Amino acid sequence: MIEALLSDAQAAIRERPKTTRGPLYDAADLGFRPYWYPAMLSRHLGKKPEGIKMLGENLVFIRAGGRAYALHDLCAHRGMPLSAGTCLTDGTVTCPYHGWTYDVRDGRCVAALTDGPDSPLPGKKNTSVPTYPVQERHGIIFVYMGSGTPPPLEEDVPEEVLREDWTIQTVVSVWQANWRAAVENGFDAGHASYVHRNSMRWRTSMALQPAWSQVKESQVVGPYLRYGGGKPGAGEEIYPVVGRWPRHSWLRRKLADIGARTSRGRPFGNEFRLPCIIHNRYAYYTHVRWAVPVDANTTRNFQVFAGPYQGSRAKAFKAQYWLWHRWVFHMLFNNQDRDIVSKLDYYAPERLYRPDRSIVDLRKYIETHVRRDDGERPERTPDDVAGILE
Amino acid sequence: MIEALLSDAQAAIRERPKTTRGPLYDAADLGFRPYWYPAMLSRHLGKKPEGIKMLGENLVFIRAGGRAYALHDLCAHRGMPLSAGTCLTDGTVTCPYHGWTYDVRDGRCVAALTDGPDSPLPGKKNTSVPTYPVQERHGIIFVYMGSGTPPPLEEDVPEEVLREDWTIQTVVSVWQANWRAAVENGFDAGHASYVHRNSMRWRTSMALQPAWSQVKESQVVGPYLRYGGGKPGAGEEIYPVVGRWPRHSWLRRKLADIGARTSRGRPFGNEFRLPCIIHNRYAYYTHVRWAVPVDANTTRNFQVFAGPYQGSRAKAFKAQYWLWHRWVFHMLFNNQDRDIVSKLDYYAPERLYRPDRSIVDLRKYIETHVRRDDGERPERTPDDVAGILE
Amino acid sequence: MIEALLSDAQAAIRERPKTTRGPLYDAADLGFRPYWYPAMLSRHLGKKPEGIKMLGENLVFIRAGGRAYALHDLCAHRGMPLSAGTCLTDGTVTCPYHGWTYDVRDGRCVAALTDGPDSPLPGKKNTSVPTYPVQERHGIIFVYMGSGTPPPLEEDVPEEVLREDWTIQTVVSVWQANWRAAVENGFDAGHASYVHRNSMRWRTSMALQPAWSQVKESQVVGPYLRYGGGKPGAGEEIYPVVGRWPRHSWLRRKLADIGARTSRGRPFGNEFRLPCIIHNRYAYYTHVRWAVPVDANTTRNFQVFAGPYQGSRAKAFKAQYWLWHRWVFHMLFNNQDRDIVSKLDYYAPERLYRPDRSIVDLRKYIETHVRRDDGERPERTPDDVAGILE
Repeated sequence: MIEALLSDAQAAIRERPKTTRGPLYDAADLGFRPYWYPAMLSRHLGKKPEGIKMLGENLVFIRAGGRAYALHDLCAHRGMPLSAGTCLTDGTVTCPYHGWTYDVRDGRCVAALTDGPDSPLPGKKNTSVPTYPVQERHGIIFVYMGSGTPPPLEEDVPEEVLREDWTIQTVVSVWQANWRAAVENGFDAGHASYVHRNSMRWRTSMALQPAWSQVKESQVVGPYLRYGGGKPGAGEEIYPVVGRWPRHSWLRRKLADIGARTSRGRPFGNEFRLPCIIHNRYAYYTHVRWAVPVDANTTRNFQVFAGPYQGSRAKAFKAQYWLWHRWVFHMLFNNQDRDIVSKLDYYAPERLYRPDRSIVDLRKYIETHVRRDDGERPERTPDDVAGILE
Repeated sequence: MIEALLSDAQAAIRERPKTTRGPLYDAADLGFRPYWYPAMLSRHLGKKPEGIKMLGENLVFIRAGGRAYALHDLCAHRGMPLSAGTCLTDGTVTCPYHGWTYDVRDGRCVAALTDGPDSPLPGKKNTSVPTYPVQERHGIIFVYMGSGTPPPLEEDVPEEVLREDWTIQTVVSVWQANWRAAVENGFDAGHASYVHRNSMRWRTSMALQPAWSQVKESQVVGPYLRYGGGKPGAGEEIYPVVGRWPRHSWLRRKLADIGARTSRGRPFGNEFRLPCIIHNRYAYYTHVRWAVPVDANTTRNFQVFAGPYQGSRAKAFKAQYWLWHRWVFHMLFNNQDRDIVSKLDYYAPERLYRPDRSIVDLRKYIETHVRRDDGERPERTPDDVAGILE
Repeated sequence: MIEALLSDAQAAIRERPKTTRGPLYDAADLGFRPYWYPAMLSRHLGKKPEGIKMLGENLVFIRAGGRAYALHDLCAHRGMPLSAGTCLTDGTVTCPYHGWTYDVRDGRCVAALTDGPDSPLPGKKNTSVPTYPVQERHGIIFVYMGSGTPPPLEEDVPEEVLREDWTIQTVVSVWQANWRAAVENGFDAGHASYVHRNSMRWRTSMALQPAWSQVKESQVVGPYLRYGGGKPGAGEEIYPVVGRWPRHSWLRRKLADIGARTSRGRPFGNEFRLPCIIHNRYAYYTHVRWAVPVDANTTRNFQVFAGPYQGSRAKAFKAQYWLWHRWVFHMLFNNQDRDIVSKLDYYAPERLYRPDRSIVDLRKYIETHVRRDDGERPERTPDDVAGILE
């Protein structure tokens, strides 16, 4: 009945073109499982079990013998979260309800305290809790939630984050949005000129960011899909109806003039990497952001600031991060993204435009390159999915 | 299983007669679209876009060139609310995500800032946002959400609200109830004697309100359905079991005696008008209340106090409103309605009684008189729907 | 799609054995209706109607002539809760919307105030509100929500609660859990050794509670199912992997030694009684707890502390309750249960172990002994349901 009362104008909205998301990507509300993901920072995991939700599943992380382990967060007995339990020994976790105790390394039940020391339970069928491979590097705990043998960590994590001769700084923030909205936002040149136009980061740079940018075809470069930037627009433009936009202050224009004469216009590389990584190469550092799925409407972002520095230069790099980049880039700038993406209705009908070429390339790339849980790539080629994507 | 365990007493509840709501009215959880509705007060719309939900749809209102405009509150691009955007020029609204800019008068996309000044987007298919006709009168912004050409505003709005030689005062309040519960409450003589029996408005009147009222058939009078009041009961009655009710104080009875000797017993006219208007004619003023659907469980009430006054008499009328009626009528009295209606389970089985004749007349009137979205009236006559209504 | 991406480890979780709940018990999310249940404490029912939800249904309790009555909490007219109404006379309740007035004893409509003293409504069809039998004993109001004639109260309520020569003290607490989780927790020896191991109640006793207990077959004893305890473990044990557990303090062990030499090791009887009663017999008092279903995820616990005392001994018993047991037993100890049970996913797959014999016995007992709404017992015998239970 309500449908019948909708006006024609409303009906028009519903007839918009379908989305350019392919079927695998469209179904991935909770992400793609067979990849290494950052789960939490090392400094957040102490002696107590820590429950955390990712890819729609509840996990519990436990430190034992200095290493981190991950289990499915549900006792095999009656459905109690192990994250509410206790580590009675280094290497086990005990359920808070009846004292079932698991080896955190393999999830096997090693004792059922309330069944006595001679309990026949350990070793019996269906008494284990699933575990997930964990690796810890540079202060980040990574977990692999796929089935089968995981690939080497290096295959899924940008080398800047893993190399011992690099220094990294990390901040974690939660966005109220699906992970795909959070990823696409990072590969979207269009939004930058508008959303960040008045960001402190750009206000204080000695350059006017372009009012718009031409977007060329993205390129596959190793494990990355590299954004294909073309000729950018000027810092200010004259538009039909709207007129001059954006309108910069005299000071900002003046500084940009000086900047243009003195700087070397370093190129800024923007790349995507499966499963959910935005990878930005700057002259003196690299910025990496994972948009890790929590549930269908929540994303946990791991923002990493990485530089090839050691010793006293690493100290200077950290100082620069805490005094400037953490505040201006990771807080003020990225929170503009968080605030806008959390308002997006990601499942609304879409009507794309020229700068969305990067979004379409991204979606096509994911559809054709995503790893399947048996470790193989999809058999589909970009040509196969061309029909469904454009 | 739970059903099977229900006691016979419970089963009896479910066997009660069906409701007297006809199918059109029963389906109208979100109201009837092809009517002019008040959306907001003029003083609440400044330079910023204002998002508001009505009839289940999100709208954004924007003032341009002094006039008010309404658009569907979703950018055609990716599903971002335009109400989070900005008016870069007088007459346009710009989406906060990628700078798509719309002419607020017709919803056409006039620029896509992040696609450059030469963007081919404006003029392309599916780049518009639906707009809705708006008129602004006497400090109230009205919107028409039906399809096709709207009727003249005068056809849907009581003349007291539109006439320049009248003075009006308005207050807006939100009830947690479906709009039909809010409307029916205003055409329901039965509740008045009970719910309002101790209201300040009646306590301070020099009359005892009747303990009950006879309800005769409602009459169609022009665009109104007029409540058919019959002989009212006394101010106090003797009931079986309950005894004397209500029990008034000595002072209140005494004042009523004096009042009865001095007053002329002015008739009080209670009328309904489509789509959701309660219209009360008093001797010196008219009270109009729209119960505008927001969503299935929320109603925005526009309560208008209107009098045929100009100049210094208008000032006196306003003073009287702010010193007395706003507080005693629009707050204390109408909040009794808000509080009771918000407790009602509108979809519960019903067992009507004699005073509900007005409710049945109202439902029948709406079913047979409601405008369809093609501008025609329903073909059904009251006789046609007699079977389903009683 | 999401299913397809689940790892094998995840799939394993879903293949766990089915629950041991039989079909009647499994369906009883809202409890079993044909039983007497405690509804509220007498001291909580004054002159105003009190709305309360139980077994998924809204009831209103009203005191009239000193007695308590219960009605379905919905006016027969339009769906307004009577609990928001008023008692104009002793023995009636009046709906707050239109003044329909009901005799609280039989739910019949006796007056419709806003229809006048001569309203034909009373006595007409479908004008009654269902009522439920109520009895009040020892400060507790009991209600029977089954259909047909209720059994004597004595058939459903432990005699300690009803006997005039006993003294009882009661506290009510709400748990965020299904009633079955709350009941099973009380018949579950396994959890006690673990959840309560550090409770104030046990810390201050001159005994070490066993680390584990052997569980034998439960016995039907009159209206009770009695927990079958076997040889208990020691106060501390040596477990594989975990080692010594629990680790008691020197003082606690010393006190336990003294206690062992002086006390007579009184047996502690733990029993279940339909519909939802945990019944614990101690040497000097009895503890009774009803886990009354509110809705599918909420339980109202009536915890009764009863002792065979009168006169000055009753006063001493009450003093002991308020100074010690109320705090140490009914608050600290039982809140450990509340906190753990509220974390349980009651509908998760289960993998039971030896001490769960009591849970299985309990479920089988309920399935075969629960009263049906026609007053008969199920025709099934334990043998009939053996197949579905183990």
